[in-house]
Amino acid sequence: GSAEMGIFGTDSADTQFHTDVDVTFSMSGETDGGLSFGASVDLDEAAGLGFEEGNAGFAVFISGGFGTITMGDTDGAMDWALTEAGNVGNPGSLRDDETSHAGYWGSYHDGAAGVYDNQVLRYDNTFGDFGVALSFEQVQTGGESDIDMAWALGVKYDVELAGLDLALGLGYQSVNIANTDGDDDSTIVGMSATTTFDNGLSAGLTYVSGDIFGVSDSSHFGLGFGYATGAVSLHANYGKYDLDGFEVEGFGLAAAYDLGGGASVNFGYGSSDGDAFAESFDTYSLGLVMSF
Amino acid sequence: GSAEMGIFGTDSADTQFHTDVDVTFSMSGETDGGLSFGASVDLDEAAGLGFEEGNAGFAVFISGGFGTITMGDTDGAMDWALTEAGNVGNPGSLRDDETSHAGYWGSYHDGAAGVYDNQVLRYDNTFGDFGVALSFEQVQTGGESDIDMAWALGVKYDVELAGLDLALGLGYQSVNIANTDGDDDSTIVGMSATTTFDNGLSAGLTYVSGDIFGVSDSSHFGLGFGYATGAVSLHANYGKYDLDGFEVEGFGLAAAYDLGGGASVNFGYGSSDGDAFAESFDTYSLGLVMSF
Amino acid sequence: GSAEMGIFGTDSADTQFHTDVDVTFSMSGETDGGLSFGASVDLDEAAGLGFEEGNAGFAVFISGGFGTITMGDTDGAMDWALTEAGNVGNPGSLRDDETSHAGYWGSYHDGAAGVYDNQVLRYDNTFGDFGVALSFEQVQTGGESDIDMAWALGVKYDVELAGLDLALGLGYQSVNIANTDGDDDSTIVGMSATTTFDNGLSAGLTYVSGDIFGVSDSSHFGLGFGYATGAVSLHANYGKYDLDGFEVEGFGLAAAYDLGGGASVNFGYGSSDGDAFAESFDTYSLGLVMSF
Repeated sequence: GSAEMGIFGTDSADTQFHTDVDVTFSMSGETDGGLSFGASVDLDEAAGLGFEEGNAGFAVFISGGFGTITMGDTDGAMDWALTEAGNVGNPGSLRDDETSHAGYWGSYHDGAAGVYDNQVLRYDNTFGDFGVALSFEQVQTGGESDIDMAWALGVKYDVELAGLDLALGLGYQSVNIANTDGDDDSTIVGMSATTTFDNGLSAGLTYVSGDIFGVSDSSHFGLGFGYATGAVSLHANYGKYDLDGFEVEGFGLAAAYDLGGGASVNFGYGSSDGDAFAESFDTYSLGLVMSF
Repeated sequence: GSAEMGIFGTDSADTQFHTDVDVTFSMSGETDGGLSFGASVDLDEAAGLGFEEGNAGFAVFISGGFGTITMGDTDGAMDWALTEAGNVGNPGSLRDDETSHAGYWGSYHDGAAGVYDNQVLRYDNTFGDFGVALSFEQVQTGGESDIDMAWALGVKYDVELAGLDLALGLGYQSVNIANTDGDDDSTIVGMSATTTFDNGLSAGLTYVSGDIFGVSDSSHFGLGFGYATGAVSLHANYGKYDLDGFEVEGFGLAAAYDLGGGASVNFGYGSSDGDAFAESFDTYSLGLVMSF
Repeated sequence: GSAEMGIFGTDSADTQFHTDVDVTFSMSGETDGGLSFGASVDLDEAAGLGFEEGNAGFAVFISGGFGTITMGDTDGAMDWALTEAGNVGNPGSLRDDETSHAGYWGSYHDGAAGVYDNQVLRYDNTFGDFGVALSFEQVQTGGESDIDMAWALGVKYDVELAGLDLALGLGYQSVNIANTDGDDDSTIVGMSATTTFDNGLSAGLTYVSGDIFGVSDSSHFGLGFGYATGAVSLHANYGKYDLDGFEVEGFGLAAAYDLGGGASVNFGYGSSDGDAFAESFDTYSLGLVMSF
């Protein structure tokens, strides 16, 4: 489980108290044939568990020599393959300010436009340094739908290049939502590259191109850094959308001091700017994060 | 706990993904005088636990030499005594299709007509091969109600007859809702008989007669079969209402293959037909069921 | 965890069934520097855990030589310091009738007038027989508020006086809500004194004076008694508000018989009267209380 206590605010609101708590129940088993299976659910998802036809906040898996099949609240294959800039050495914060700014993109077209239901079926497997995943997602409907399943493909590859240990990710995702060029489907392709240096620094970038949010000729770029030394962890990321000329950007900062025993003091900051806003705005949070 | 992943559909809707998970918390104790007591509650009932005046999805019991008193989400005495056709060797399915068809009757007049609140108080006791139960149920009200408590009586008896080990159940239930004959109360009587053969086959039937759903001169008939061999379990049931001439019927099928370790592949199918429908309709589900 | 089964009623409503169950998850840890930290959350609070900006039913703490800081669903400093009349030797009841009557005051101005959000930040520390606490509470807002933080101060002192071991509490609370004298703030001061005699009897009184519910020149008085012998516990309390002449009063009774092993039979009764009511009214509950 976990718990948090602290404060948060924005540049246009009072500083307020923040408290959070969660308890995680993990269950697993193994078939006679050696397949492992399981599920994990959080206490705060209890109220939605009756919702079996969509994403109710948990995932179920079965795994064996054939790979792993996961269904529910899980990453689509593109999200599975790419490492977001905000996941590079990020110690986290109470309110995820550093990954909630307007320039941050975390889950690509999973649950696209609220049309798809974010209940993902993903197959993935790993062969040495190479990993591959395929995923499907449906429209939430009680009847017959004219909208095809969304699907995504992801590939991971660990490679040494110019003396760097690179983790590469490549993804493709197609959703059956018309793009601004008039096509029936919106498609995106993206890649990520991350590396960790000996001195505790880590760095990563992502680049995605295509019909982002249905806007053709769009791109998103993200850059992230992490640094850990002793009890201190620092993280920064920057991201920018170019939606056929309409630009939105932001950056995030996170810092943590580890108190040991599962407790740490965490700070998060996010700043958003761009064509979507009259002026830039900021959010922050600061407090104690506990894991049990 | 348990978890499920799979697909489901009907003959008029697309096949859809299904995921489910649950965690059960069971608590028990014993008084100095040797009475055992306890309660069990599921994670997915968390949101309703503030509802103390009706059925909130859990039951509390105390048990001793005097018998057992149970209050809450528990069977009325008639439901306690009778074994439904769908409970004969049924391995279950992801969406209970085999016991959700229009011909299936599972809980008699417990919670009748939405007038009673399904928060049942039941006393039961067992004497050798003989068991007896008495139950009461109230109208949900914050004030004074003109509607009397519902009550039910149930008897169980295990007997060897014509070389068969028969489990017999007999029940009577009275609810203070007018029937179509103009009486103040609607009453039903019913019986069930089930038996298991040496070859893994089990069979059972139920018959209920009276003011079903308030319609006088009505009856319901159910028939169920189960068969288990090795890792395979099969089940079929058929049921039919005759509500003073208005007939509704349906059948259900369930099949499971046990993978061991608590996992199985389960299939369920239900088909409904009768005077209530322009045409018959079907539902099905297929997938992995995990118990932990 | 805990569970309850029983009946309850009022003098103007039918006797009804009552069932309740709860599961408590307690988590704790210790930092490398020796600070202890933790949180506790009940199953029935699961649905509200997404609400991080107010009182979601749980509290988080960190504790060390400096004292204890608690945030969330916890007593304000005045409530922390004073022992309510209803907490004097009270074994409790299924529906808290004995502390729900109109003359009972349990939490002072915590969450005052629905303006403050009951998400309390409290610091407390103990030095021998002496304890002190300071607390703050905010208005629930997404933006900037004109209403200042509420705050409270509490002091506890254990002293032997005239042969009695007295536990004394003193509290002060200020909320930024206008009183009927036209001041911007409503303030209250209060004290409590409790003692336990050798024969199993305990007694306590509280007195609070000031702008109760914003009504200047008001007071509240409470008196409570407890008695425990063998398996039997008895409790009675009386309380009265004098809101600048407008009087409301009530009394409560509770009795329990301990069955051992965590089970007991509990009875509660509350009676309310005064200028707010056309006539007095009563509530009661009776049943089995189980703790696991």
